[in-house]
Amino acid sequence: MADVKFISIDGMGGDHAPRIVVEGLEHFAQSHPDLRFLIHGDEAQLKPLLEKAPTAAPRVTIRHTEKSVAMDAKPSQMLRQGKGTSMWNAIESVKSGEAIAAVSAGNTGALMALSMFILRKVEGVHRPALVASWPTRKGVTAMLDLGADIAADAEQLVEFAIMGVAFARAVNGVQNPKVALLNIGEEELKGHESIREAARLLRTSNLPIDFRGFIEADKIGSADIDVIVTDGFTGNIALKTAEGIAKMISDMLKDALKSGPLAMLGAALAMPALKQFRSKMDPRKVNGAVFLGLNGVVVKSHGGTDSVGFAQAIKVAAGMGESGFRTEVEENLRRLAPASPPPTPAEQAAQ
Amino acid sequence: MADVKFISIDGMGGDHAPRIVVEGLEHFAQSHPDLRFLIHGDEAQLKPLLEKAPTAAPRVTIRHTEKSVAMDAKPSQMLRQGKGTSMWNAIESVKSGEAIAAVSAGNTGALMALSMFILRKVEGVHRPALVASWPTRKGVTAMLDLGADIAADAEQLVEFAIMGVAFARAVNGVQNPKVALLNIGEEELKGHESIREAARLLRTSNLPIDFRGFIEADKIGSADIDVIVTDGFTGNIALKTAEGIAKMISDMLKDALKSGPLAMLGAALAMPALKQFRSKMDPRKVNGAVFLGLNGVVVKSHGGTDSVGFAQAIKVAAGMGESGFRTEVEENLRRLAPASPPPTPAEQAAQ
Repeated sequence: MADVKFISIDGMGGDHAPRIVVEGLEHFAQSHPDLRFLIHGDEAQLKPLLEKAPTAAPRVTIRHTEKSVAMDAKPSQMLRQGKGTSMWNAIESVKSGEAIAAVSAGNTGALMALSMFILRKVEGVHRPALVASWPTRKGVTAMLDLGADIAADAEQLVEFAIMGVAFARAVNGVQNPKVALLNIGEEELKGHESIREAARLLRTSNLPIDFRGFIEADKIGSADIDVIVTDGFTGNIALKTAEGIAKMISDMLKDALKSGPLAMLGAALAMPALKQFRSKMDPRKVNGAVFLGLNGVVVKSHGGTDSVGFAQAIKVAAGMGESGFRTEVEENLRRLAPASPPPTPAEQAAQ
Repeated sequence: MADVKFISIDGMGGDHAPRIVVEGLEHFAQSHPDLRFLIHGDEAQLKPLLEKAPTAAPRVTIRHTEKSVAMDAKPSQMLRQGKGTSMWNAIESVKSGEAIAAVSAGNTGALMALSMFILRKVEGVHRPALVASWPTRKGVTAMLDLGADIAADAEQLVEFAIMGVAFARAVNGVQNPKVALLNIGEEELKGHESIREAARLLRTSNLPIDFRGFIEADKIGSADIDVIVTDGFTGNIALKTAEGIAKMISDMLKDALKSGPLAMLGAALAMPALKQFRSKMDPRKVNGAVFLGLNGVVVKSHGGTDSVGFAQAIKVAAGMGESGFRTEVEENLRRLAPASPPPTPAEQAAQ
């Protein structure tokens, strides 16, 4: 039984929980016969749903709780009163070693706060980061931090690079990820001091990272880069700008194609191509942001996602949980430490 | 003759200059019979082009110079050696009072540096800002700073708000612009200290500004906001993210609609609707970023724009040049000063 691995799932988190949680799990289970699942939540609601999930059900253990975290609950309040909720228990299963990773579509702020509180930061990591895959013309690129914290100094950006590389390998299957720092120009002198210093550290450090310099935001989708590093404020702005523009364009296109009988006929004829296009741009395919830098894997699914998106979030959790992510990150953090310049004789004398 | 107003144009700036400059001018001149134009550049190149621009030509004065600023020239180099270039002379015409505004599609960095150097900052403005219109579902919203500088403290953000409001009135014709600060959440406690402090200043100050709080980046195109204020680093990242995503979606859509005979037939039938859609999203319609905070109006056109885009940039220059922009900004900057809290008795005693 030593090889049986569990994924821990918050059965009650998300706008359409627990239905899409169980449907997503069934979807995921069909392609992953080796994993088992702990679902935390209200047994009375979960059982009937699992009856309609024949592939997943035999591999599911329900951990009953009646408490759950409201989508609008304050993180600070949940730190005091969240014990025993399906979210808290889902994370706790990772801490206890029962599960290799936890997934929740619940309240982001509460999930970050509880994950930090229960799992604690990995030694050597100054700030955890939120990472997710970003769709590009060729596939995906991993971007972090997307908003775990608002600021990051040069060393923290380097830590994000280390974690991002391990994520790209574990989840996106890139063997030698190419890394770039998000900036407002490609020249060395551009941008905040923290970014320029991080570039210097990445160039001169002893890390096994293929660092390619700065990337401008209009190149995110077209450059051949696998990991894009930025602070949480900037990453959050970029992510939400992209979401907003994609939604606006998609809405306007829909309106245009409904604007008259010829346009509608044209849209119908072009439908298979448009569907393929939509599938490439499908945000559900890149669902599942991961909190990196904690002693355990926690994956955040979009709250409004459907079963396809939730299945993707479980897939991210499984990829992270089964990978050598933590070992790799810890090794590289250790390499980072001696990469700092040794003290000068004057500094040594002053000590 | 006192009422004859001139727009000063860098005839040699941009990837397709001087051709698109003169074509754009002709386009603009047809709808604006009241303005005249100074074109700075190589007479031998400009004259034959003007022969094909019958509406504009009678109202154009060519100011000959053989020097121009290369698209890859360094701003610092241009400060030393840029005198006598078409860009320098175009700005100089604003300083001398000959022209109400200058337009250039040339090198952005050089244009910013020369504008600052020749025109100097308006008294009371700490940092100039780059503002441009951003397409939304309903029309446009003005956003600043888009990259004139990388940082902005709370007071500078308030100055940006003052300048953005005057811009929205002058160029976008909004009588009472609604203003918001770009942030990573709508709650008061979110974001950098500078943003939260700017919100406090905008709420409590005596300024005639309709301040609506924070806006998240995914709402830029859908919220009913006329002016979005942010620092230059964040603004540049948001702008370029939007450009990159829009280009990626448009390229992928084109590929999809060329993917087979049915899709192509469908696209042909839907063409009028798709054209209308493209027209709404047309970046040329929002071409023309303005450097705010200088003693004179300088408009930057996209370097790669065509004549339609360049005509739009001239339109922005005319709108700004003919408006009461500077008077309004200067009045509000004066109101801002006494809005700071008076010194406490302890502070007074310490002085």
